[in-house]
Formats: sequence, C-alpha cells, structure tokens
Amino acid sequence: MSLITLTTDFGTKDHFVGAVKGAIYTELADAKIVDITHEISPFNITETAYILKNSYKSFPKGTIHIVGVDSELSFDNKHIALELDGHYFVCPDNGLISMIASEIQPTKIVEINIHDRIESSFPVLDVFVQVACFIARGGNLTVIGKEIKDYKKLIEIQPKANQTQTQIIGGVLYIDNYGNIITNISKKMFQDVGKGRKFKVNASRYSFEKIYNKYNEIVGNNTQDKNRFDGNKLALFNSAGYLEIAIYRSNLKTVGGASSLLGLEYRDPIIIDFFNDSKPEFTTLS
Amino acid sequence: MSLITLTTDFGTKDHFVGAVKGAIYTELADAKIVDITHEISPFNITETAYILKNSYKSFPKGTIHIVGVDSELSFDNKHIALELDGHYFVCPDNGLISMIASEIQPTKIVEINIHDRIESSFPVLDVFVQVACFIARGGNLTVIGKEIKDYKKLIEIQPKANQTQTQIIGGVLYIDNYGNIITNISKKMFQDVGKGRKFKVNASRYSFEKIYNKYNEIVGNNTQDKNRFDGNKLALFNSAGYLEIAIYRSNLKTVGGASSLLGLEYRDPIIIDFFNDSKPEFTTLS
Amino acid sequence: MSLITLTTDFGTKDHFVGAVKGAIYTELADAKIVDITHEISPFNITETAYILKNSYKSFPKGTIHIVGVDSELSFDNKHIALELDGHYFVCPDNGLISMIASEIQPTKIVEINIHDRIESSFPVLDVFVQVACFIARGGNLTVIGKEIKDYKKLIEIQPKANQTQTQIIGGVLYIDNYGNIITNISKKMFQDVGKGRKFKVNASRYSFEKIYNKYNEIVGNNTQDKNRFDGNKLALFNSAGYLEIAIYRSNLKTVGGASSLLGLEYRDPIIIDFFNDSKPEFTTLS
Repeated sequence: MSLITLTTDFGTKDHFVGAVKGAIYTELADAKIVDITHEISPFNITETAYILKNSYKSFPKGTIHIVGVDSELSFDNKHIALELDGHYFVCPDNGLISMIASEIQPTKIVEINIHDRIESSFPVLDVFVQVACFIARGGNLTVIGKEIKDYKKLIEIQPKANQTQTQIIGGVLYIDNYGNIITNISKKMFQDVGKGRKFKVNASRYSFEKIYNKYNEIVGNNTQDKNRFDGNKLALFNSAGYLEIAIYRSNLKTVGGASSLLGLEYRDPIIIDFFNDSKPEFTTLS
Repeated sequence: MSLITLTTDFGTKDHFVGAVKGAIYTELADAKIVDITHEISPFNITETAYILKNSYKSFPKGTIHIVGVDSELSFDNKHIALELDGHYFVCPDNGLISMIASEIQPTKIVEINIHDRIESSFPVLDVFVQVACFIARGGNLTVIGKEIKDYKKLIEIQPKANQTQTQIIGGVLYIDNYGNIITNISKKMFQDVGKGRKFKVNASRYSFEKIYNKYNEIVGNNTQDKNRFDGNKLALFNSAGYLEIAIYRSNLKTVGGASSLLGLEYRDPIIIDFFNDSKPEFTTLS
Repeated sequence: MSLITLTTDFGTKDHFVGAVKGAIYTELADAKIVDITHEISPFNITETAYILKNSYKSFPKGTIHIVGVDSELSFDNKHIALELDGHYFVCPDNGLISMIASEIQPTKIVEINIHDRIESSFPVLDVFVQVACFIARGGNLTVIGKEIKDYKKLIEIQPKANQTQTQIIGGVLYIDNYGNIITNISKKMFQDVGKGRKFKVNASRYSFEKIYNKYNEIVGNNTQDKNRFDGNKLALFNSAGYLEIAIYRSNLKTVGGASSLLGLEYRDPIIIDFFNDSKPEFTTLS
C-alpha cells in the first residue's frame, strides 16, 4: 500500500482532480490517495509552501506528495522529484519546496527527464502520476531523472532581523479559512532575536504586547462571560509555530476575520520591535 | 479496517484536514477516512448537530466519528468520547451531539483526560486522532477518560407546541447547498401535534397548506411543461424527515434559493397553525 | 475491491455526500470511493456531461460511476444503468451521458426498475447506491432493470459547421476553475472542417488567428520576462481536446479570468471562420 497526497490549485469543480485520481488507481490499484488541498490560490507558490510544510510531517515516512501548482513545464520551470525527511515530493521546481527544504536538507533531488516521451499540457496527470507510481513501486529516482544539487529558492518568504537585533521585519504569508493572518515569523526566530525582551508586534495600525499560545488563553478565568471576547484581536503562535494575528472566534459572516478587520493582505508588513530594559511607552490598542 | 469520519469547520484550503488525515494514517495504516464535511460555518454547533444526525446512520456500526467544531479545550468546553447506537463520537461537549442523543441514549460517555500529557492548540490533531485510533484498535473508553452521566444540551434547536396544541413554533435550522430552508420541525412532531387536522405553514410572509414528500410531486401529471414549475415555492418533508421550504429546481445564480427569496435566515421563526374542524379562511400565496 | 466514483451537484457542505459514502461502505466494506466533483452547478446537465467525459477514462475498466445531478425520478426522468467502454454508469436518463455515448456506443442500457420497492426523495442514496453495489458484486444489469435501446440526447452541446464548410458555430460549454472558457468545439472537428486553412476564432469582441497546444507556448523563448505575458488572452486546445479561450496565468482575484474579461457566459456563441486561400484582412486584437 502506498500513500499519495495531492496539493494543487485545481479547485474541486473541474475534472482535473478526478482524472488524476483515476490515473493513479489505474497504475496502482491499492494506492491510498489523500487530498491535502485543491484550493491553493491559482499559481500561488508561497501558499503552497506554507501548506506543504504544515501537513507533510503528519504523514508516515515513505508518503509520496504530488504538488501541482504552476506546474506547466517550461524553460525555467523544470519538473523535479526529491527525497527529504523520508518523504518524496514530485513537483515543479518553482520554490514551493523552499519552506520545507530550508529546514531539512533533501537527500536527493532529480530533474525529471521522462518528458521526451511525454508531451503534455496536463503534466500532473501525464508526468507526476507516472513518477509517483514509479516511486511507490520502489523505483529509484535516478531512473526517471538526472540528479541535481539545488532547488529554486523563494526569497520573499524570509523575515529579517535588523543589525542591532531590535526589530524583526516580517510579512503576511497566508490568510486562513477563518480569515486569520499568518505571518512568516516563527516562534523560534522570535525567541532567538527577542531573547525574552519586551516587545511590540505592529500589524497595520494595531499593536500587541502579548503573544498567546492558544486562542482560549484570551478568556483566561472569565468563564462566566466567555462570549464577550468574541471578536477580540489577539496575537498568538499558532499550531504550525508561526506568529498569527487572529480574531477570537472569528466568523467571516458576522464579526469578520482578522484580514478584513485589520485591512491586511498577503505580503503586507508585520514588524516586531524589541525593547532593551526600558519600559515601553505605548499603550496597547488590541 | 476502521472507518473514521471527519466533520469540521476547517474548510478545505488550509493544511488542517490534510494534517489530521496524515496523523490517522500514521497511527493506523489501514484506516478508511471519510469526509462528512469541512464546510460547517465557523463555530456553528446547530449546523454540526443537523449534519451529524443525518449522516452518521448511513455508516456501518463501529464507525468512529471525529467532530472538530469549536473544539479548543477550556474550562467549560470539555472533550468527550461516547458510544451511541453502535457508533463512536469523539468531540467537544458543546451540544453538537444533542440532536442525535435526544433520540437515542448514549450507552457510555467519558470526559477525555489524556490532556495532562498533551497541551495543544490543535486538539483535533493532537487529542481526537489519538482517541479515535485508540478506539479503532479496540480500546475501552474508560482508559482514556472518566465516565460521566450527561452531555451538554442545545436548547435552541427544539421546536415547541403551544398548550392548546394548535400551534407549533419552530425555526430555521439550516440553509442547504441549494438555498433551501430546513426547519427544526420533524415530520413526527407535525403528525403527533397535528393529528391529521388542516394546517397552515407560515414562513416569512408566505404560507403553505400542503406539504409534499418529494420535490417532483409539485409537477404532478403535468409532464408536458415541467419547466414551468421551476422557481415555485413548496413545503416538503425532506429526506432527513424535517419540514423544508424549497424552491423547485432552485438555482442560486438564476431563480435564487428559498432562503434569499423568502428572506429567511438561520434561527428565523417558522410557525404551523392547526385548525379544528373549521375550514381555513386564508388563501395560499405559494 | 471496487472503485466507485461520485459526480453530483450536492456541494460539500450538506450531509448528502457523507450519507452516500456511508451507505456504500455499509454495503461494500472494501469499496474505494472517489469524488469526481460535487460542485456541478445545480441541475446543470451540460457541465456534468463535460466533466464525466474528461474524467471517466482515467479510471480502470470496471469502475462504477454514480452520477447524481437532477436525479429525482419522474415521468420523464427515468433512472438508468449502463455499460460503456468497460465502465458502468448509474444515473438519471437526462442527457448527461450524451457526450460520452456519442463517441462510444453503450453495450447495454437498462431502465432501473427496483423502485416499486423503494420510494425515495433521495434516490442517489436509496437507489443508485444499491445498484452500484449490486454491479460491484458482479450482478447483471438485467436483474435490476429492463433493457432499453436508447438514452436521452442533449442536443445543445453539438457545434455545427455551415454547408459551405467555411464556418463552425459553437458555443461556451463550461467555465473552469481558473475562469477559462471551454467551448464545445473539439480539435478533431476543427481539423476535419478546417483542413489546414487559415482561420479566425471569434469570441465576444475578440478574435484569435492562432491556437496553441500548451499555455506556455505563448511565452515562447522570452524566458527573461515571462511575467509580462500574465493576463494575455490566448486560444488553445486544452488537455481534454476542446478549444479553450484562456488568460495566461489567470487569477480571478487579480487579472481576472477569461469569462469575466471577455464577458462570455455558458451557452454564448463562439464562431470560427475559415478562409479559402485569401489572406485574412483583420488584425488580431488578442
């Protein structure tokens, strides 16, 4: 039995996802196919990178991940297959593997070269499925591709600390299903740069002096009137380990989500200031 | 082989659903995972209750249902696991089990107490998956929790009959994919209170004197010009056994759905009047 | 092991899809169920026909396809089961099988007649599942239905060539997830009628003199500045073999999709003019 996941921007209305699954089952009758998502914003590599990073690790070693986002073959968009952390990825070389590979080095990367046999406008169906099934049957990556040493980096998703280490300049990485804002600033970076100092998180015209670890922490011991916190803004480290600006129990239809309420979109800046000893002079607006 | 279903408000874009599935397969390689829905309106317990009630029974006995809606652990939101009608449910104790449990008594309920080992902001992944896989391997509920006698009730979803039994006061429970309005009034209650008397269903400024059993009954023998009924309003008992106000062959993009056309939203009142002998004096507007 | 696919307009929020899957697993514990889509526009037969045609072939022979779009039984909407190209289809006889069956003749069609035992307002759950599981267990179609010779045709989806073979009059068949416009004109028809002559594709107020075979062909050798083609209009034969009007790397949220940018909707005309020898006198606006 082989576990194969799918992460695409195909949407779930068209025939694309169904066709890909049919092709996998035709090659590999006992495959287990898991949809990670098909709702990636069209051609959005950063979203793909974030979602892959936060889902792949839950799967057992040996899982094969097919990623179909901006995957049409071109001069500067090669198809690759790689092994990393015991998992396999079959995807275009457009940066979507960056967030994972920047933490854990791939053990092998090949540039897929079975295309001389397959000319296609639907490479996920015609190329990626074949490669995934080949790997599932125990095939060696070097049979279907030429080994390469590097993969394309996605530079924009890296937050930066200033030279004096008093500021992290990050940005919005992703807006989730609840409208919450996920930044590219990890808890690890926050701790490495901040070293326990006081801080202020600046997001649009709002700022936060406290970062929670769970949404419900904002309620604390106010068990009597839990609902009065609905709609409150908060900063927290989410389950993926990233700084998130959230609305407590947000509902996009009623109270609205963080993204719309704070007016923050993908790529907008999120800045953290750290304070040496001195007591911060601002008041929290959150 | 274990069958595990998922019902959440996670949406299908984020990594949450993929991560949960990966975790299940990691624990239980031969699991079969079925998505009931991930499109519950955020934190909406009533919707969850309705969808669970109408889907769980189709599954074979022994199926384990993970429900992740408003599931963050807190002082007044415990995590429970229960056995009911031969099925298992792993969920927060926030009322979502009400509609099922009001009809069929749970045979055992435990308050999950493995949290001292697991502190989490993503309890479906970290707690519910573990409990579900434990049950799937034949584990006893009392090992992972302390037996309790009761679960939280959701009072708002109960329709009421007046003292003289001439009126049922119900409400809108759910708007479905076609825009049709599902009420909380069951066919059984209608029959028990109505006892075959004439009636009038009042929904917004419309009323209905007839309740169909199939959408197509409105067409009757008019097979020549079936399309002229498109867009007609009708009341029927739907396949789930609830009174529904529908638009015949509704299309939200063209003729519109019942919800928008009648101006009815979740929780709005739906009232049925029953008439003793006397002939009703109103005219149908439907 | 049996492979059963589902194609419906149920959406993924309601309990319908979950209930159907539960019923299949109850009957057939080792079934593999694949969602082709549940996002068909309500009651849209043409969309269903297009999606079925482009997905079924990827599946292995013996796959059973349940199709639930406008499937309530009525005088002029019978339920049928058929064998075609080694696949089985269980569906209403409302034309949705037209696009497939016009190319490959069904080897057997039966009108399902188990309804005298089952009266239902949810026929996919109560009838189609039973029929599909019966077929999966090796049952013969004639046991659950009466053999019939023909199926309902969907006439509107056929493009036409004029008598002098200088024009193909087609139309918009489908708008896909990227907002691209798929026409009902196949590459085969284009070649049969056009016979290599010069041509002009007319779509709304735009026209195209070139039809690509891949989206990336529009970029050609301009590898330096690939992004400057984003948002360009192009005509191509898509992976399904149909003429498509697309926006290069379209994003419905930013540059917009072909459908909105060209103002073309389902059923709008797409016309191809062919030119005998003479050089076309127009200029391309694309």
